[in-house]
Amino acid sequence: MHTDPAEYIRNAIRSVPDWPSPGVTFRDITPILQDPRSFRVLVDLFVYRYMRQRLDLVAGVDARGFILGSVLAYELNLGFVPVRKKGKLPYQTLAEEYTLEYGNATVEMHTDAVKPGQRVLLIDDLIATGGTMVAAAKLLQRLGANVVEAAAIIDLPELGGSDILKETGLPIYTVCSF
Amino acid sequence: MHTDPAEYIRNAIRSVPDWPSPGVTFRDITPILQDPRSFRVLVDLFVYRYMRQRLDLVAGVDARGFILGSVLAYELNLGFVPVRKKGKLPYQTLAEEYTLEYGNATVEMHTDAVKPGQRVLLIDDLIATGGTMVAAAKLLQRLGANVVEAAAIIDLPELGGSDILKETGLPIYTVCSF
Repeated sequence: MHTDPAEYIRNAIRSVPDWPSPGVTFRDITPILQDPRSFRVLVDLFVYRYMRQRLDLVAGVDARGFILGSVLAYELNLGFVPVRKKGKLPYQTLAEEYTLEYGNATVEMHTDAVKPGQRVLLIDDLIATGGTMVAAAKLLQRLGANVVEAAAIIDLPELGGSDILKETGLPIYTVCSF
Repeated sequence: MHTDPAEYIRNAIRSVPDWPSPGVTFRDITPILQDPRSFRVLVDLFVYRYMRQRLDLVAGVDARGFILGSVLAYELNLGFVPVRKKGKLPYQTLAEEYTLEYGNATVEMHTDAVKPGQRVLLIDDLIATGGTMVAAAKLLQRLGANVVEAAAIIDLPELGGSDILKETGLPIYTVCSF
């Protein structure tokens, strides 16, 4: 590694024009994941950040947040809990609805996913409008969790999500921004 | 660990009656994941199995296959590639349709996810009818991959998926069955 790890990760992200709709540029993390070196650099950035923090669980957001979240949980010797889209979890769930550009969406967690007072790191791949992250953090807090930080690989600051998350008092961390 | 690791994992799985529909018992892996010890035992079972095999990539099936697949890729120093539900991947994709109990479903991969000849371990959480695994393996093979094994935590042999996978000539591995 002769370059800054965050810059190395940023350079490995693929920008796909006009996806999912015309005028939108999608930031695609699959090139990072499929190369063992960049995948390792990515995971280790998060491992180094959190390895001395007192944490109990990593909560990963359905579905790309599972990829980074589960590796972090394993490496940090923590449990992993999924924050899922509506209707995917089989046991008793708690739900939190949030607003999308067109319509609403809902995230769910098992009611026994977190014990009150547990310290939870919340992980997704990207912060855009922040809707999913805010809803996931609320869910965790309703279950009694202490959400220590909301972390993602990519921030899209122009979409305002990271500002909204900061306003809720939640510490946030992202590797790079576009 | 005084018990057999596979038995320990089997005992940590929660059986949820009548989900997703009456008469069906769902095998829920979330209790394994949220306990750091059982999560580690689970991952290590797969790490020990594959650490001396020549592999290039782990392909994880959307979405629960991401959880185990990404940890394995990291631990084995391999790349991770997602096999996704239709419409989730932003770049050029190849698709494979398969039959469900009611209707059809489609899995997709990026056309550049695998290079011809790469040795790929295919991971999901569960083998039921085998439809998703067979479709994912076909996709990988159409991209030129050598699918070394299809692995999952749970086999439901009464649903016939593991037999169908064996008939396609694909080696399979599961930790436990119900």
